[in-house]
Amino acid sequence: MTDVNVSDAGWLSRDEMDAARERLPILYVDAVPVRVDEQGIVTKVGLLLRLGEDGQVKRALVSGRVLYHERVRSALLRNLEKDLGPLALPRVPPSPQPFTIAEYFPTPGVTPFHDPRQHAVSLAYVVPVEGDCAPQQDALELTWFTPLEVREPGVLAELANGQGTLLLQALASLGV
Amino acid sequence: MTDVNVSDAGWLSRDEMDAARERLPILYVDAVPVRVDEQGIVTKVGLLLRLGEDGQVKRALVSGRVLYHERVRSALLRNLEKDLGPLALPRVPPSPQPFTIAEYFPTPGVTPFHDPRQHAVSLAYVVPVEGDCAPQQDALELTWFTPLEVREPGVLAELANGQGTLLLQALASLGV
Amino acid sequence: MTDVNVSDAGWLSRDEMDAARERLPILYVDAVPVRVDEQGIVTKVGLLLRLGEDGQVKRALVSGRVLYHERVRSALLRNLEKDLGPLALPRVPPSPQPFTIAEYFPTPGVTPFHDPRQHAVSLAYVVPVEGDCAPQQDALELTWFTPLEVREPGVLAELANGQGTLLLQALASLGV
Amino acid sequence: MTDVNVSDAGWLSRDEMDAARERLPILYVDAVPVRVDEQGIVTKVGLLLRLGEDGQVKRALVSGRVLYHERVRSALLRNLEKDLGPLALPRVPPSPQPFTIAEYFPTPGVTPFHDPRQHAVSLAYVVPVEGDCAPQQDALELTWFTPLEVREPGVLAELANGQGTLLLQALASLGV
Repeated sequence: MTDVNVSDAGWLSRDEMDAARERLPILYVDAVPVRVDEQGIVTKVGLLLRLGEDGQVKRALVSGRVLYHERVRSALLRNLEKDLGPLALPRVPPSPQPFTIAEYFPTPGVTPFHDPRQHAVSLAYVVPVEGDCAPQQDALELTWFTPLEVREPGVLAELANGQGTLLLQALASLGV
Repeated sequence: MTDVNVSDAGWLSRDEMDAARERLPILYVDAVPVRVDEQGIVTKVGLLLRLGEDGQVKRALVSGRVLYHERVRSALLRNLEKDLGPLALPRVPPSPQPFTIAEYFPTPGVTPFHDPRQHAVSLAYVVPVEGDCAPQQDALELTWFTPLEVREPGVLAELANGQGTLLLQALASLGV
Repeated sequence: MTDVNVSDAGWLSRDEMDAARERLPILYVDAVPVRVDEQGIVTKVGLLLRLGEDGQVKRALVSGRVLYHERVRSALLRNLEKDLGPLALPRVPPSPQPFTIAEYFPTPGVTPFHDPRQHAVSLAYVVPVEGDCAPQQDALELTWFTPLEVREPGVLAELANGQGTLLLQALASLGV
Repeated sequence: MTDVNVSDAGWLSRDEMDAARERLPILYVDAVPVRVDEQGIVTKVGLLLRLGEDGQVKRALVSGRVLYHERVRSALLRNLEKDLGPLALPRVPPSPQPFTIAEYFPTPGVTPFHDPRQHAVSLAYVVPVEGDCAPQQDALELTWFTPLEVREPGVLAELANGQGTLLLQALASLGV
């Protein structure tokens, strides 16, 4: 990759991205997809089943980088579409205030969040989705859980990198 | 009114309500109705034109009491339907956290908010509405403004009781 | 009680208060007292040991009514002083936005929060306290727990009326 | 710079930083320093007078990068100390949730925020400071304004890069 313009901005070569990951915190977004009823009460929480780089199957939230010259809400939509497909109809909240930020450190134990590849700081949002979800790319499956089911220790344990903690923080912010 | 049950809870006689208003803070909800685009960006803000008790026409947010044994989100929906009609399709946010609280005092100047009738504490929310709005009851009209138009001094001045300040706080929470 | 002014505002006779409690949601504040280090990280969470009306000893958050013509932040300070004593030096946050609202219903099961006496809606805040705490009145003791200790099931179970859930929501909002 | 470890992490050579700034959004923190009274009410807002790279004197909020392997709250404290001196005693809020995020784009007009050097995404916090402030380094002076004074158009116009908008959003989040 020799030139960067707005349309392909943020696409670094693998080497360049690896170099940046050793020097700078990388900006991410995390989204917790939910189904809501007509009162706005969360009835279901969606978790992806994803094939990790180590070949292990893990549950995960929708998550991804914010690219150069990309707005945070565009990054949310792009990552939701990447994982849930083009017909998911996500309703990104009008306020840019995240319910929390998750600081993923390469060193375990600094925070509840861990990412062996990098220091990532993620803006976390709950996003109602109204359409049909079809997992894409490295997402094998999307499973909907009730708020009660999703907080079962067995389910939380399948979330890697501390995302079980992030999910519980999302549920707490929803009052459930 | 001699007996209270869940179905008519909160309906006090005029005398009883007047007595309560002199003794207790009354719980309200305020809603700022907005139109959003497919990215969740607010494109329009809705203001009611309402006939006040003094016969004056004023602009207003959607606002109303929380009744006995009524959930806050139900109160939001009921008051939105009362003012915007049954086809407005409001999307009450899944999180119960208000973007602010507005404390309306009977004495002017204690806070930016004033209500000569009572001490009201209002939980304030921004609510996207997707359907057709038809003002009801004492609401004469609903006007949609762009975020730029709605913050013009002339428009803000038409909002009574400090709701111009609340509207600006809502816009600030939306990042616009 | 024949006249109300600002100084005794909100002091209803027992009968009047009982009547109001059957007709209107009553506005409360809940405060989670915390110790923070110089980085603002929560190191301890304080729980009261309180003698309930039923003679049972229970753990509790700082909690109380907002009085007529009283600001929410004044109600927070008054209730903190009532329970923690005059030297607690609470740092009420500058923003009025609560981290959540807790809706206590007289009917169990409507929300996670329950109050057999009334329908109360509580604005919930985390409040760092810097001074010496000395439990007052019906508060028998204040115990400081680490964030890890306080979320042990045995401790959470000693909190009545769903305040264990509220405590977990507070911890989640703190990122711990 | 040939090796990176935790202690010097985030210190890139000028060339490397320039390269990163053309490829990735850079993570920042913005802090609005305030004085609060014993009720937590904001009485003063602090603005820096800073000498810009273009030799112009401008007002500014406390602002700076989050470094590699640095926690967001440590970055807040480091940048506050850098600008306000070591005796400022900032009280970083216990919750990591920013009141908003500010997206500074190199292209003007995408958002209210603009930074000709880079695409920066900033987590914005209000931080009470209790000690003595002594501007450091390129900060020439710190001036305390009342909330009323600071929103005068003349003052807001002296803030560059859209920070006048961010300041108004901070004030709105404080309810003033």
